[in-house]
Parts: sequence; C-alpha cells; structure tokens
Amino acid sequence: MSGSDALHYLDITEAGKRFRDGSLSPVTLTEALLERIDALDGQLQVFVTLLREEALSGAKAAEEALRKGDDLGPLHGIPLGIKDLYDTKGVRTTSCSKVRADYVPAEDATSVAKLSAAGGITLGKVATHEFAFGFDAPPARNPWNSAHTPSGSSGGSGSGLGAGFFLGATGSDTGGSIRAPAAANGISGIKPTYGRVSKHGVAVLSWTLDHVGPMARSARDLALLLQVMAGPDAKDATTIDAPLPDYSAALTGGASGLRLGVPKNYFFDDLIPEVEEATGRAIEVLGEAGAKVVEVTIPDSEHLLETFFSIVVPEAAAYHTRSFQETPEAFGDDVRELLQQGNIVFATTYINAMRARNVIRNGFRKAFDGIDAMITPGLPVTAPRVGQKSYDWGSWQEPVFRAHARLNCPFNLCGLPAATVPCGFAGDGLPVGLQIAGKPFDEATVLRIADAFQQRSDWHLRRPAL
Amino acid sequence: MSGSDALHYLDITEAGKRFRDGSLSPVTLTEALLERIDALDGQLQVFVTLLREEALSGAKAAEEALRKGDDLGPLHGIPLGIKDLYDTKGVRTTSCSKVRADYVPAEDATSVAKLSAAGGITLGKVATHEFAFGFDAPPARNPWNSAHTPSGSSGGSGSGLGAGFFLGATGSDTGGSIRAPAAANGISGIKPTYGRVSKHGVAVLSWTLDHVGPMARSARDLALLLQVMAGPDAKDATTIDAPLPDYSAALTGGASGLRLGVPKNYFFDDLIPEVEEATGRAIEVLGEAGAKVVEVTIPDSEHLLETFFSIVVPEAAAYHTRSFQETPEAFGDDVRELLQQGNIVFATTYINAMRARNVIRNGFRKAFDGIDAMITPGLPVTAPRVGQKSYDWGSWQEPVFRAHARLNCPFNLCGLPAATVPCGFAGDGLPVGLQIAGKPFDEATVLRIADAFQQRSDWHLRRPAL
Repeated sequence: MSGSDALHYLDITEAGKRFRDGSLSPVTLTEALLERIDALDGQLQVFVTLLREEALSGAKAAEEALRKGDDLGPLHGIPLGIKDLYDTKGVRTTSCSKVRADYVPAEDATSVAKLSAAGGITLGKVATHEFAFGFDAPPARNPWNSAHTPSGSSGGSGSGLGAGFFLGATGSDTGGSIRAPAAANGISGIKPTYGRVSKHGVAVLSWTLDHVGPMARSARDLALLLQVMAGPDAKDATTIDAPLPDYSAALTGGASGLRLGVPKNYFFDDLIPEVEEATGRAIEVLGEAGAKVVEVTIPDSEHLLETFFSIVVPEAAAYHTRSFQETPEAFGDDVRELLQQGNIVFATTYINAMRARNVIRNGFRKAFDGIDAMITPGLPVTAPRVGQKSYDWGSWQEPVFRAHARLNCPFNLCGLPAATVPCGFAGDGLPVGLQIAGKPFDEATVLRIADAFQQRSDWHLRRPAL
Repeated sequence: MSGSDALHYLDITEAGKRFRDGSLSPVTLTEALLERIDALDGQLQVFVTLLREEALSGAKAAEEALRKGDDLGPLHGIPLGIKDLYDTKGVRTTSCSKVRADYVPAEDATSVAKLSAAGGITLGKVATHEFAFGFDAPPARNPWNSAHTPSGSSGGSGSGLGAGFFLGATGSDTGGSIRAPAAANGISGIKPTYGRVSKHGVAVLSWTLDHVGPMARSARDLALLLQVMAGPDAKDATTIDAPLPDYSAALTGGASGLRLGVPKNYFFDDLIPEVEEATGRAIEVLGEAGAKVVEVTIPDSEHLLETFFSIVVPEAAAYHTRSFQETPEAFGDDVRELLQQGNIVFATTYINAMRARNVIRNGFRKAFDGIDAMITPGLPVTAPRVGQKSYDWGSWQEPVFRAHARLNCPFNLCGLPAATVPCGFAGDGLPVGLQIAGKPFDEATVLRIADAFQQRSDWHLRRPAL
C-alpha cells in the first residue's frame, strides 16, 4: 500500500489525530479521496452527486478551524458519504428515483445537520435502491468483485466504504438495508434501536420499520458517528429521549461478563457453509474475549418473514399514494409492482400482521431474558451477481431480496439495535458478516461486542484489490 | 330516602368505614343491593348474569375476614358490577353477543383478578353494546328515564351505578365507552392513559384504541378502584411500568396552582345549550377552586373523527376475522354491517389514518404545553331515546354513535387520560357531564380536578326517582 493509498483507509480516530498533530490536513485527505473516486467510481458507481467543490471548501474551513483551535470534535474534517435518501439542503436528493429527479430539499435531514454541525464533510450523495425499496441492483457495484452488487439498499454507502472513498457514511435500514451491505462489502454498520436516531428528512419506506444509522469500517468509528446522530428530535415524534451513553467509552476491548445468546433455530437455516463456519469461529473469538455463550430459541419464527412483508409492502404503498397515482410510470418496474401489491392489501391483513408483530416482539423479549446480546450470521449468503434474481438452496430458490432480509428483518420488527461486522470470506472471494443484536437502547453493548471482536481479528482491515 | 335506600348510594369510603366500625356488614349491603336489583332490574336490564349466591358468600367471607382483621384494603367487601366484556373465571362472558353466548373463560381478566384480590365482590356481569361495538341500544335502560338508553358501550355499568345497584364497576373505552355512559347516567368514569391498565382478558374492539378503567359515583371512588386496576401486566404487552402515584393522596380537594386549558374549537361545536351552560358553570367552579383557566386550540381537529373511524372499523374487523367468516349471522345487524365495512378497507387507508393519528397526537401534545389538564363538555347531548338513530342540529342530523364518540375519541387517538363527571341536567331531566383530560400517566391530576369540582358541587349526589 502506497502512502497515498494508506489515507483512503484511515480510521476516523487516526485521521483526527493526524489533523491535530499537523501531520495531515483535511484538505489533503479530501483530495486523496477525490482522486481515488475519480479513478474508481466509473467502475463502482457509488456517487449519485459528487460535491467536489463543496467538500474541498469544507475541508479548507475545517483545516483553518482546527488550526485556530475551534475544534468541533472527532468528526471535524472527516469526509462522509450521505445516502441519497437523506435530505441535503440545496443539493438534489433523488432517492435514486425519477419521481424525485428534481427534488432539492430546503433543509438538511436532522442526521445530516448533526453530522455537519459536528464538522463532518459531505463528499457527496451515494447510491440507494430506489426509495430503499427496489430490489433490482442499483448501479453501484461491489468493490470486491464488480460483477456483484454491493447489496442494498445502502449499497453506495457500503461500496464506498469498502473502496476507501470516505471514512464514514449514513444508511437506512427497514429490513437490513444497513446490515446487508455491511456484510456484502466487508464493512461495519449499525441499525440503532427504533427511536434512537431521528428519521426526519430521510425518505420513508415503511414508517414503523424504518431506522437510520451509521456505516463505517470499524465499531470504533460507528461509535463516533452514532454519538452524533443519536438523540431525540422534535421533528420526529418516534424518537425517544432515552439516556445516551458515551459509546466510545463503552468499548472496553473485551466482552467479559457478557452473556451472548446464539439462536440455533431460524438464524442457522439455509446458510452457505462459509457463513456458518465464519459465524462459529467468531463466536469462539467472543468466548476468548470473555463472553459466555448460551443457546437461545426464537419463538414464532415461522411467521417472521410473512409478518415483515405484510407490513412493509402496504406501508410503502401508503407513503407513495399520491405520486403513484400521479406518475406511476416514474417508478422502476420492481418498485411499481411492489406498490401495486401494497395498494390491494386489506387493512385487516395489515392489522393482523401488526398484532403478530407484537407476539413476535414479546417472543424476542423473552429470548433476551438472561442474555446481553444475540449473535447470528449477518447474511446467509454473499453479494449476488448483478442481475441475479435468486439463490439456489438445492430444493428451493430464494429470491435475492428475501435472502437479504431474512436474518435482518426480525430486528426491524422488534426495533432492537443490531450491528453487522465483517467476519470472513467465502470461496467466491466475497466478504461475509456477523450480526450482533442487543436490548432496547443498548447500542453500547452491541458496539462493545463488535469492537471486542475487531480487537481480536483483522477481517475489518482486509481491503479489496482495486 | 329510607334507611335501606341510603345503603344503595353509599360511597366506597363510607361503606368501608362502616364495615370496620361494625355498623354495617358486607352481607347486609349486598342483600340490600340484591333486593334493589330484584325490584328494578326488570325495568333497567343492567345484569346479563346476576351472581347472587357467589356475591352473598363472598360478602360473608369478607365479613369474617374483616372481623378477624384480615383486611385487604378499601375495596374489601365492596360490591361491583363487571362489564360482560371482561373474562370471569367459570362465569359466562358473552360480550352481549350470540357469538360468545356459551363462552366460559378459564381465567379472570387481569383487572377482575386484581379487584377480587383486593376484596371486591362481583355482583354480576353487566350489559355492554355487542363487543362494545354495536351502536343500537343495548337492553339496558337509563335510570333517569327508562325510555332512554344509558349510552354505551359500558351502559350496564353506567345505569347500574346511577340506579344504586353497586358501588363501583368496570368499563372499557375505545371512543368514549366509559365516559359517554358516565355523562348519560350522571355518574363518574375515567379512561386511564393507554398502557396504565391491563387489557388482558377483556374482549378487543380496537387494539390500538381500547382502554379499560373504572366507573363509580365520585372521583374519590374512582381513585380507589383505579389504584387497584393500574399497573403493568406481563400478559398485556401494551402496559407500561410507569410510576404509580397514590391516587387518593392526590385528591387535595382544591385545584390551586393548576392551569386548565379550554379548547374553544371543536369541543364547543354543536352542543345542546344546557351542555354549554353547565360546562361554563363548572369551569367557573374550578376557577373558584384555585385553577387558572386559559384558552387552547386543537390543531387538525377537522380530521379527528375520520381518523378515528378509519382505525376502529378495520381493527374491529381484524379481531373478528375468524368468527365473521364462520358465523356472520351470529352478529347483530349493526355489528355485522360495521365488520363488513371494516373488511373492505384497504391497508393504505388505515396506514394513512395511523399517520394522521401521529400528527393529531403531536398537536395535542403541543396544546398541552403549559397546561395541566383540558376541560371540555363530556357529551354534546343527553342520552338518546331507545331506538333513536340521530340527533337533529337543524341543518344536519348526527348519528347517535357519532355524537357519543365526537368529544371522547380524541383522547383515545392520543392515549391521554380523561374522566367524565356529572355537571348538571338538561331540560329533558337527563344528566350532562364534564370531561377532564390530562397528560400521559397523569390520572392523578385528572382525578384531583374532578374531586375539587365534586367538593364544590352536588351533581354527583343527585339520584334518579326510582
């Protein structure tokens, strides 16, 4: 790795240290990243809108402020990718849909405003599945193999982090849209507890399942980003004013005293062998880090996916009611078909799914009795090839969107915090991920476990050959 | 009033005092009530199932326990009416529907179990609208004029309290079903905060709007009953473990230091003049009790009723899905028609109503900024004649069920606590009620205001000529 290459994969803490000891300028870092983006984004197609000049002038302002001692904290001068679902004041926010091709928000999403106020530099707006809902591949490609997708819907965030385009990114997660691309691109992401982070200004997919959160290359970086994004917001009535711990301080480097539950049913069905092996190895590492591992059982698991889809599909249709009536042709084929399906769901079906969801939530609450976190595979598979519609399990074919939601959506139904971090590679050379889920508002323990794992493994330090 | 008559209208505190000073036995009280029920219930039709022998043996056990000093507290030996929507172990629980004609629960509803454990005596199961949903008159009649209904759905509870059949009762309230019969029968009732009282074992009408709570003849008695019914329940995931104050201790007799908001829009549209006058007089009394009265505005009030009905109708249909498919003919005509309507609502309509509900909830939250409680009329009208379908406002006709939900349902949509207490009579000789609504989990202030009013008025002490 050359000296310049090394900058692309700096972590946030190290970059901040160099900014402050004068050995690196935010401008130099931003220029190095822009150079790499120029060289590689034709192939990876991460950026929907690259904010070259704005980023450079932001980096310059950060450089000056830091020199003068006007220090905004750990994110000051750190280049970030913002999912194009997040409103950005004066900057086109397309949700990767023709429906929003000309939409220029008048204000920032709350998370964007908070990250900017903390000194973060928006490098640009990055690719998402259309309205986070489409399941056809977005234009973005996987940095480990550009014949494969980066998964989604936060595919641009995942690919860009894997490719060394920025140090942190925002994602949103309705059924795995942060965690699936984390697994697929060998990076780290956390979906916080429902209510922890404001969704104000982020386009809605499913108003009871949506979560927004950070993506990065390590648990330590996630802690820094989540610290800024978290907290109640008068503009989002679903946020909750729960005590906000110091996430970085929670990273002890170990897991002693923690009880980790491994759910042997549901989460270990239909996995490629490399995922099962890597998960097993990771659990051993967490045992060495001091955790006690126990088996747990998920009740009512046979209803998880049906409940999830019975909620997300009509909720998306409700959100898009007007634009679907006015310009149905502006939606992609896959999204239009899903909205059509959502429009003809009866309320009783949806309501019974919401009642089932309550039963599921109680089941998970019980499964969490006596454990601090749950450890599962992140995805049952690796990233699909571009255009691939399903995975082959021998006796059955699983649609790509189902395989990518299967292990993630339970924690959206329950609103529980869950992170996915890299834990190995499959025979196809693509990364696989480990999921760590926690109790309500206990992202600190989830991040502590992720960090303990990263202190004892180097999967999060592996880089694609680009 | 003869000596025996006086027993029928004892309040819970006075009855308990006499039980303990030996001047009255629970058996004597129960016998006096049964005698009155025998004399009058042919006319009023409050009881679906009268538990004569069980109540007498319960009263005898209470008498003995109290003599031995095994004192279960303020409800020990107090005869109660239980709405026939509440499960009672081994006792037929019909929900006043042919669908449940033979349903004998294996366990008590949580509220019933708690009231029994506190020494309450179940005199019997009392009338409700079918599944709390029908709007045709239940068989029960209004004790002030038996040509009129007691309103509903907790009509048996309201009529029985007005008639002096029992000292306390249970009700349930989805859009006013505790508060409307409180107003209509000249008694007191409180719908607690959503999550305050377990709904376990109470037949569902609308799972996001249902509340259960007590009915009685004074705020002091409501405080004693709610104290026992309140609290989290592992069997009802919607209950919340919020701090539970001593409700009786909160009744200071005055309202000094409280700011009361009077919403001049929505809540004062289309009232009979006597309701408007009585509400105005009551607000003056509360001012004399030390409260400061201010005007407030309810935002988005034009969407309240549509939002309410768009939620309750499909939610009821979802709950009754199976029995509606199996035995549609077992439902009354009015309920069957509502269920048919609920079955053909689209999920998007319901979901958009739930989103509107969030906007409404935020509007009420803002309206409560700077006030401690809201004061409104309880019902715009008095109890309808049996068979009456609508109220005549000159330029338009309002269906009875709409008029009875209109001022109540906002506090179901928002989950806020609200009590209704008697505050006067109309020209037709029927009672009218005052509604007091509070902040989340602040039933204590609601009851304090109701009690302060009752300390300065005697409407709650007026009795029908029976």
